[in-house]
Amino acid sequence: MPGFDHNERTAALLARLRSFMQEHIYPNEALYHRQVDEGGRWTRVPLVEELKTKAKAAGLWNLFLPHSDRGAGLSNLEYAPLCEEMGRVHFSSTVFNCAAPDTGNMETLERFGTEEHKRRWLQPLLDGKIRSAFAMTEPAVASCDATNIESSIVRDGDDYVINGRKWWISGVGEPDCALLIFMGKTDPAADRHKQQSMILIPRDTPGITVVRPMTVFGYDDAPHGHMEIVFDNVRVPATNLLLGEGRGFEIAQARLGPGRIHHCMRVIGMAERALEDMCSRVKTRVAFGKPLAEQGVIIERIANSRIMIDQARLLTLQAAHRMDQVGNKEARAEIAMIKVAAPNMACQVIDWAMQAHGAAGIGQDFVLAKHYANARKIRFADGPDEVHRHQLGRMELARHG
Amino acid sequence: MPGFDHNERTAALLARLRSFMQEHIYPNEALYHRQVDEGGRWTRVPLVEELKTKAKAAGLWNLFLPHSDRGAGLSNLEYAPLCEEMGRVHFSSTVFNCAAPDTGNMETLERFGTEEHKRRWLQPLLDGKIRSAFAMTEPAVASCDATNIESSIVRDGDDYVINGRKWWISGVGEPDCALLIFMGKTDPAADRHKQQSMILIPRDTPGITVVRPMTVFGYDDAPHGHMEIVFDNVRVPATNLLLGEGRGFEIAQARLGPGRIHHCMRVIGMAERALEDMCSRVKTRVAFGKPLAEQGVIIERIANSRIMIDQARLLTLQAAHRMDQVGNKEARAEIAMIKVAAPNMACQVIDWAMQAHGAAGIGQDFVLAKHYANARKIRFADGPDEVHRHQLGRMELARHG
Amino acid sequence: MPGFDHNERTAALLARLRSFMQEHIYPNEALYHRQVDEGGRWTRVPLVEELKTKAKAAGLWNLFLPHSDRGAGLSNLEYAPLCEEMGRVHFSSTVFNCAAPDTGNMETLERFGTEEHKRRWLQPLLDGKIRSAFAMTEPAVASCDATNIESSIVRDGDDYVINGRKWWISGVGEPDCALLIFMGKTDPAADRHKQQSMILIPRDTPGITVVRPMTVFGYDDAPHGHMEIVFDNVRVPATNLLLGEGRGFEIAQARLGPGRIHHCMRVIGMAERALEDMCSRVKTRVAFGKPLAEQGVIIERIANSRIMIDQARLLTLQAAHRMDQVGNKEARAEIAMIKVAAPNMACQVIDWAMQAHGAAGIGQDFVLAKHYANARKIRFADGPDEVHRHQLGRMELARHG
Amino acid sequence: MPGFDHNERTAALLARLRSFMQEHIYPNEALYHRQVDEGGRWTRVPLVEELKTKAKAAGLWNLFLPHSDRGAGLSNLEYAPLCEEMGRVHFSSTVFNCAAPDTGNMETLERFGTEEHKRRWLQPLLDGKIRSAFAMTEPAVASCDATNIESSIVRDGDDYVINGRKWWISGVGEPDCALLIFMGKTDPAADRHKQQSMILIPRDTPGITVVRPMTVFGYDDAPHGHMEIVFDNVRVPATNLLLGEGRGFEIAQARLGPGRIHHCMRVIGMAERALEDMCSRVKTRVAFGKPLAEQGVIIERIANSRIMIDQARLLTLQAAHRMDQVGNKEARAEIAMIKVAAPNMACQVIDWAMQAHGAAGIGQDFVLAKHYANARKIRFADGPDEVHRHQLGRMELARHG
Repeated sequence: MPGFDHNERTAALLARLRSFMQEHIYPNEALYHRQVDEGGRWTRVPLVEELKTKAKAAGLWNLFLPHSDRGAGLSNLEYAPLCEEMGRVHFSSTVFNCAAPDTGNMETLERFGTEEHKRRWLQPLLDGKIRSAFAMTEPAVASCDATNIESSIVRDGDDYVINGRKWWISGVGEPDCALLIFMGKTDPAADRHKQQSMILIPRDTPGITVVRPMTVFGYDDAPHGHMEIVFDNVRVPATNLLLGEGRGFEIAQARLGPGRIHHCMRVIGMAERALEDMCSRVKTRVAFGKPLAEQGVIIERIANSRIMIDQARLLTLQAAHRMDQVGNKEARAEIAMIKVAAPNMACQVIDWAMQAHGAAGIGQDFVLAKHYANARKIRFADGPDEVHRHQLGRMELARHG
Repeated sequence: MPGFDHNERTAALLARLRSFMQEHIYPNEALYHRQVDEGGRWTRVPLVEELKTKAKAAGLWNLFLPHSDRGAGLSNLEYAPLCEEMGRVHFSSTVFNCAAPDTGNMETLERFGTEEHKRRWLQPLLDGKIRSAFAMTEPAVASCDATNIESSIVRDGDDYVINGRKWWISGVGEPDCALLIFMGKTDPAADRHKQQSMILIPRDTPGITVVRPMTVFGYDDAPHGHMEIVFDNVRVPATNLLLGEGRGFEIAQARLGPGRIHHCMRVIGMAERALEDMCSRVKTRVAFGKPLAEQGVIIERIANSRIMIDQARLLTLQAAHRMDQVGNKEARAEIAMIKVAAPNMACQVIDWAMQAHGAAGIGQDFVLAKHYANARKIRFADGPDEVHRHQLGRMELARHG
Repeated sequence: MPGFDHNERTAALLARLRSFMQEHIYPNEALYHRQVDEGGRWTRVPLVEELKTKAKAAGLWNLFLPHSDRGAGLSNLEYAPLCEEMGRVHFSSTVFNCAAPDTGNMETLERFGTEEHKRRWLQPLLDGKIRSAFAMTEPAVASCDATNIESSIVRDGDDYVINGRKWWISGVGEPDCALLIFMGKTDPAADRHKQQSMILIPRDTPGITVVRPMTVFGYDDAPHGHMEIVFDNVRVPATNLLLGEGRGFEIAQARLGPGRIHHCMRVIGMAERALEDMCSRVKTRVAFGKPLAEQGVIIERIANSRIMIDQARLLTLQAAHRMDQVGNKEARAEIAMIKVAAPNMACQVIDWAMQAHGAAGIGQDFVLAKHYANARKIRFADGPDEVHRHQLGRMELARHG
Repeated sequence: MPGFDHNERTAALLARLRSFMQEHIYPNEALYHRQVDEGGRWTRVPLVEELKTKAKAAGLWNLFLPHSDRGAGLSNLEYAPLCEEMGRVHFSSTVFNCAAPDTGNMETLERFGTEEHKRRWLQPLLDGKIRSAFAMTEPAVASCDATNIESSIVRDGDDYVINGRKWWISGVGEPDCALLIFMGKTDPAADRHKQQSMILIPRDTPGITVVRPMTVFGYDDAPHGHMEIVFDNVRVPATNLLLGEGRGFEIAQARLGPGRIHHCMRVIGMAERALEDMCSRVKTRVAFGKPLAEQGVIIERIANSRIMIDQARLLTLQAAHRMDQVGNKEARAEIAMIKVAAPNMACQVIDWAMQAHGAAGIGQDFVLAKHYANARKIRFADGPDEVHRHQLGRMELARHG
């Protein structure tokens, strides 16, 4: 059947996911934040632990991993609508063990890890017993150009010794974070794309100092967190290196495609929820003699939101479809497109929804401001809009004789 | 197969259509305009007549009519990419007998005409022997609200007598225009949506005066033309009325869906061509020491154009798919969405392409300015953006409890 | 002299203000935040107290109050550039005793207070000994329409008794906040604009409960704060009523003009600083082989920022000039214009600056994200964009016969 | 007096100009177009000749020339509002002898011409007896970069011989066009900005062939016209060279400032008129049960138009003021700003006005579509937006440490 209507398998999972969210997630959003506060922000959230057990029992677990028998076996296109649904509540991805950066890390370990890596790290991650982080961005350089990375990974006997300063390392705040996948340079003299390597660093290795949590607008996103970290002579066995020296860039490229689809589908979920919130709000508020819902400017924004969301969703599904058909590398134009289109769309739709809520829209009683901050962050994550547009524009130019 | 990849039938037709255009249409664009000038603008264009014969012979004829054995039997989704292709050259739709308003008129006659109507008007239209027009818009009222229509259709014995002033009646300039489908009021006292009727008026009926061609920006679009016409006691047999008195609004609604898909796919074709023109142009122009193609702002616009075109195309294909699945009426939200999204997108992409061409971009050596004018016109045709957004916004509001 | 070049008086004050900020404010931005944290957020900030003394000594005090011998005697036009300068650092307005809502409250007391009100509240406010708040917005209704206000002010003998729930009451977090000017209804049965009154409520009156601070994109803006407050049978002497029953709307209107100029000039200061930050940043960051400062898209945004800032500043100065010439009421179209134009401009310019900073742009090491949140908030404060556009559009329509 | 309120002199001239336009220009707009048609498009328009006499008699003549006793002696700032007024009707500038490119040519002759040049060409231009053109843009190169110009001016004894192809040469259609100021290269081997020279070419010199009029969105702008011209061994006396060999670029720079102010003020006039048209139209049109003037989206656009026009006008007046104060060269950032801001603003405002008119908006019964085409053209004229933004962005970057 043509189009992007859900197939039976996706439709069934989506129905199950939605009813789980209705029953267990939405009613507990306030409780989640209360538990984070009560726990002092950087501790395990009891609610999440309970819900993870329930989600696993409901068969809503590890839905993200395509082309592997370790996950649910869904294609990118099949997973996409489920990912959108999870995006509506920021902590729900964790409940279903589908949260970044664990997903990208699991995919990296699945594709490029040794059997020992899989045994020690992938399996506990798949089981939801540990969490992980991905240490790439550095404060001193424009990290959108991965060749700028300055941290060092130096061979010393049977070990590698790691030095550097990273920041915006998401997930290090999680009390269960046990593993960092670290990107640095093994050979600064090599070819531009062969200098970098990736290495596995257990969280409890000596020499790792968390300097501070970065804030996103004013949010610390506890207990997940986006940390600034100093690595001072951190020593790990040489077997922790992924694939081999100089292959870091290659691994980075491989992990980006699915991660971008996920980011995009989640922000589409945020936008869809914002539109629903906007519609509900404007029906109940009266100003200057009539409900906001009858005011032309509001109706126009609702219409434009619907158009923009549907366009971004179709483009993202098309990118997922292409990834399934021709692989991540061949689909890179499509992936670049959605990485620009989806978060920008979401920022606009959420902004309109905030405006329709009055001051409440930027406060803590609605998810809007938090979601705006998240969607705005996605405009940098995995490369800023400008880099994607530049690459996309050059691909397009190359197509025309 | 999921997605909107072409099925075999469409792929084959598209390949044939493209090679026809490469061979017969693009090389003759300048000749077309020369013949229009040489013929005094409002006469038959010999080139078009020749190409019609060739197109019919190539099996590229009447591709538009879905769900009927009179056309090529394509679904809306199958026809859409062909329609996009034709949109790249404004006179090519005529070559393939797929031009508005004939298409809408043929569909109207097919769905609502009597056997006699079909014999006398539909068959010659399908054969490309005559052309037709659709007389709805009036200068005196806001015609986006069809209930505003003021022209009268009054029963007088076995005839109806028609009076009124219409404008922007496209196609009346064609020397072969033989039929007007006319919308007017048979009963101004009836319910708001039951006052209107549609009636067939032979072009040569006494009382029809073409006042002047309207211009679109500075284009008269000869020989097609957009005419202002006075109907002064125009008398036709009562059997010319379609369906019955008071059913004009219903017929108008029915014809709009496919027409909007066609408009949208054609403007997408214009946008795609503009993007190609922009890419070609910027590679050959140097300013301030480097080709425009290496300047960041240009690359950004090319990237944004690609994103915007692909989003609009996917949305339009989705609307076509929905029309095929659930019918024009159920798909009205999707149709409203594309009617807003596609021409606005095209105006922006073409505008960027014009800007990249310098002054040449708004002149007669490229199709850009003409296509801009056409795409801009589509933002009014079949209802302005604002009406579609308003209806769409209200549908969306109604979906949320 | 034509134009908005500074006159001598303004030029001299501006020079003094700038050197004060260079010497005392910019170098202490980090210290300010550290002291807020160390003080537990809702306590007096020692730095601010020291700087207030210095500012008073430097003659940089109460610059805001036009047409009064109690302030510096500057016109709105003369004060505007000073206000812009203060906007560059959010706590600096407080240092110069020019912070909202104190400024609006002082102006209200100056224009509408009794001698006793002035003695008890205005003088200590002018001296910077106490702070104040303005309690208008309510959670239950769309407060952009002031007639929606539901809180009650009921006469009871020689007192008024106040009940209601307010939120986003800025400044109540300040430990020195001693006064609330409260808007409520004295007569719900009166004419639509005669139902409201304003009354002075000492902060320590029994029955006032601060429920919680509201957050602005995650920021609590401590120690200023934006509080939700319950007023439960709060009793004050009848003499605390301003002007008389039913005159609340009139007072609200009068206070809005200058407050809007101030808001706008401050956000222009934020935008100007963001542009400076953007320019500095892009010179020091290299990506894909050249500094960001040489990349076309960045240069274009810098140019557009300059154009947008200068336009918004000129429009705001024009509004200030009109207020000085013809009064706040006659200048209401100009005031509505800037209220829309300035914060929207600032949001866009700051957003570009954030994007040029990469992830750092939304974190705590730059003022950008905080300023974005503030500018975004101004799009609601004193009425959302939509209300101002609506009123402005109607005024414009009324001008054309 | 601060601000940009008109001084007495400007106010008096503006009042006189407005009443002239009310009496003689607006009532004759249709007649103008009829006479152009009746005259076969490329002939003298009797109406214009009559009105020129009247305008001269009314003291509304040569208002544009600043800092010279040959014109009205107005500063740029004083002339600006008059220029805006003329912009409302495209042929009115000619009536007041204030039309481009004559104005720029007169200013060039005044500043850089010899006494003989002034006697032979400047005086008849000032008297309105002849018209002129400025031949710079070439089809073969990106002329926004003046160093790309390829036409040659070669010394041959006491003459120069000119060869080249120019297009978009405005005003050559005028039957009274007697002079072309031509830009070409005298020394392609010289420094990049010293290769060009300017030379005076009498229109009737042998070797000049007008190839065709270029169209602007379908408009030929007859009888003014934008011509493509071949110069084939056109020979003029060496004394026709302006200033000296290699000084063409310098002259080009000098003439641009005032021309850009004029362009900008005229498009502001177009925008202001479009806004008036929009307001009038929406009051008289009813759709879906209420006048367009009561529909929120329309009101919002009217408000945004007012904001955008006022901002662009203030910015342009500020640029004029700076030119008067510090000279064209020092004011180049301000001039670049308005060159971007004003025509883009006008395109948007006119587009909204067109949309509010329905199909009528793009036809010949309103000036909107023609004005849109003109304003759109200004986005290229004297350099496209992109070049101005690039220069402005670099100036801004240079300001910051």
